Amino acid sequence: MSAIPAMQVDLSLGVTAPKGFRAGAAAVGVKKLSEKPDVAVLACDAEAQAAAVFTTNKVVAAPVVVSREHLTRRRTIRGVVANSGNANACTGKQGLADARQMARLAAERIGCPAEAILVASTGVIGRLLPMDKVKAGIDWASSGLCAGPEADLSFARAIMTTDTRPKQAGVRLAIRDCTVTVAGATKGVGMIAPNMATTLGFLTTDAPVRAPLLKGILRRAADATYNCLTVDGHMSTNDTLILLASGQALAGAGKAAAKPIAAGSREAAAFEAAVTAVCDSLARQIAADAEGGTKVIEIRVTGAASGAEARRAAGAIANSPLVKTAFFGEDPNWGRIVSAAGYAGISSGPETMRLALGDVVIFDRGRPTDADEARLKAVMKAHDIAVHLDLGAGRGRARYLTCDFSYDYVKINAEYTT
Amino acid sequence: MSAIPAMQVDLSLGVTAPKGFRAGAAAVGVKKLSEKPDVAVLACDAEAQAAAVFTTNKVVAAPVVVSREHLTRRRTIRGVVANSGNANACTGKQGLADARQMARLAAERIGCPAEAILVASTGVIGRLLPMDKVKAGIDWASSGLCAGPEADLSFARAIMTTDTRPKQAGVRLAIRDCTVTVAGATKGVGMIAPNMATTLGFLTTDAPVRAPLLKGILRRAADATYNCLTVDGHMSTNDTLILLASGQALAGAGKAAAKPIAAGSREAAAFEAAVTAVCDSLARQIAADAEGGTKVIEIRVTGAASGAEARRAAGAIANSPLVKTAFFGEDPNWGRIVSAAGYAGISSGPETMRLALGDVVIFDRGRPTDADEARLKAVMKAHDIAVHLDLGAGRGRARYLTCDFSYDYVKINAEYTT
Repeated sequence: MSAIPAMQVDLSLGVTAPKGFRAGAAAVGVKKLSEKPDVAVLACDAEAQAAAVFTTNKVVAAPVVVSREHLTRRRTIRGVVANSGNANACTGKQGLADARQMARLAAERIGCPAEAILVASTGVIGRLLPMDKVKAGIDWASSGLCAGPEADLSFARAIMTTDTRPKQAGVRLAIRDCTVTVAGATKGVGMIAPNMATTLGFLTTDAPVRAPLLKGILRRAADATYNCLTVDGHMSTNDTLILLASGQALAGAGKAAAKPIAAGSREAAAFEAAVTAVCDSLARQIAADAEGGTKVIEIRVTGAASGAEARRAAGAIANSPLVKTAFFGEDPNWGRIVSAAGYAGISSGPETMRLALGDVVIFDRGRPTDADEARLKAVMKAHDIAVHLDLGAGRGRARYLTCDFSYDYVKINAEYTT
Repeated sequence: MSAIPAMQVDLSLGVTAPKGFRAGAAAVGVKKLSEKPDVAVLACDAEAQAAAVFTTNKVVAAPVVVSREHLTRRRTIRGVVANSGNANACTGKQGLADARQMARLAAERIGCPAEAILVASTGVIGRLLPMDKVKAGIDWASSGLCAGPEADLSFARAIMTTDTRPKQAGVRLAIRDCTVTVAGATKGVGMIAPNMATTLGFLTTDAPVRAPLLKGILRRAADATYNCLTVDGHMSTNDTLILLASGQALAGAGKAAAKPIAAGSREAAAFEAAVTAVCDSLARQIAADAEGGTKVIEIRVTGAASGAEARRAAGAIANSPLVKTAFFGEDPNWGRIVSAAGYAGISSGPETMRLALGDVVIFDRGRPTDADEARLKAVMKAHDIAVHLDLGAGRGRARYLTCDFSYDYVKINAEYTT
């Protein structure tokens, strides 16, 4: 697990904060209640180096198939087109044709080949896109492309499904005496039936980074943040996280300054830290806005026999409905936490374990402690709760972000009937 | 996956229905509300061949440690002592000493070595057993050992935690012109905080079966039933399923008739079918009584590339909170079902999938069908719902039993605060 760098994250920065990007959005009624924006376009002024990670679900949505195809053929991209309200998943050949058509329509407006466009969708599964509406949305969004705080927020709003607020974050850092920006927008895991937890994330930067280095950085940043975030363990068909680098931050600073950042350099490390910090902020915003969630719970597992064991243990704790309902009830039910670790395929037993809720150690080497009830209650009452399980078996460590499980989770996911 | 045999299961038969077993129970206040029985003893009149399967959780309760020990040293057993209301888990050395003491106390009353006794506990984790009460309970239960319907029900009641009714089942079959009985009792997965889903099962038979054959049969029966049952995917620290064979059914029928059933024989197959049918009934009774569950859902996956893929897919569907809340809401949200299969590590995609809810095919080869809404509504309204996903990729098949996820699940597991 990479540590999450302590960097100053600015929530007023969005996808057009780095130089070289413009965004636009439109409300055309792909979402049922139609005043809300539901089509978004992100355009790069010139070819941008690109990296992306996608869902590993075998049931994969058409836009993911198309974006993957485009990225295997090209390492630079000119734009992204996205819609909310319809996932274009489980829609067969017509769905694939529609996703390709979305890329073509955006490409015509931006002035590039269709393959230079990435496509992302989020929303209900198993329904065909209303392509007349989508086409109108792409036209409208493309005609209003611009940069700045308003464009950032319209883009962030247009990808929302059941999110209660837009989610964006950015970091500024100095590289070769120039200011470089990394920023992004994401959507949360609201799961109103029949919608799914289809998480999308769009990151932009004006740092000069080539696609191969960009890919490694995005993969590691996603592993440490998005891939350690769970609301209910149900992996979606549409998950997409894209990172585009325009390289324009240093464009005016002479030839040497514009040289791409080299893998393994101090600059690369600083840039990776910035990308990770932005992803971490976006993932936390998702956890905080999770439908039905009332608390954000950070689970740290240390002392595991391996990193993989640590990750499995943290994931099992984060996904256990028994653990999550206990947090909703503010019940320090530590037996559920240690037993979830126990079934996660770890090689050590309770006799070396130590569990703390907040700063209160409640279980130590196979035995409950005489933990102070009042302090424990205060920990459980807080909105943000830290769980630290040390397995006492090695040096493996991992971290997971999750939320609790409330009546509203059941309400949101059961009551709305198709 | 073994198919579940269609056998006549009799719910009036319990642990003393087979010849050679007696049971007793006592209410001594290990459970908080003390009128309910909470200590049980099952005694074999003579040495019984024994097999057991236990939780694979690394955080394992003291009684499981002790029972495993005893079974590695002996293949015959004289009795079982069990309590509800306290799991004796995460209780360190004292917990282990207490579990051994339970075996010793029961052994004194039955008249055998302590190692001839198996121990099982269920209930709250992380608290020491009130051994004075437990001792009184073992004395009381042992003094009232007898066979018959009343003894069966007292035993089944004494192992209940949050079950709303006792759970038992039996099968009679003819072997060598004699009537052989297989019967058992189990407890359900009620999970009132701070209790856990600690499932215990006790099976008895008077068939003449040696321990090695018994072990294989129990393992396969558990795999096809108990191990395909999930309420929330949280594996407990105490899971124990025991099968004891007295061999007394054929004792009066002459020397040839009393010969142990041979592995691979037609008799062995009939006996295994009976054990599986009893386990299947017990598992269904657990699913039907699951706390917060309003429906029993049977998930069949066929056409998988392998049996392991089928099992993973069925398990992912059965454990997904998104799928379970949709069933609670009677919402035919099939996108959640196919996407759960998609993230289970299967090798095929949606283009070969076919999904039916009840007898209504709703998704076929990557596309939604024009399923009849009224028929679909009727399927979703039923208490028992069959889900059949064919992956169209091979011959692997699996089956899972589960329940839905309701407000009561959250209530039961969150509201009761320690």
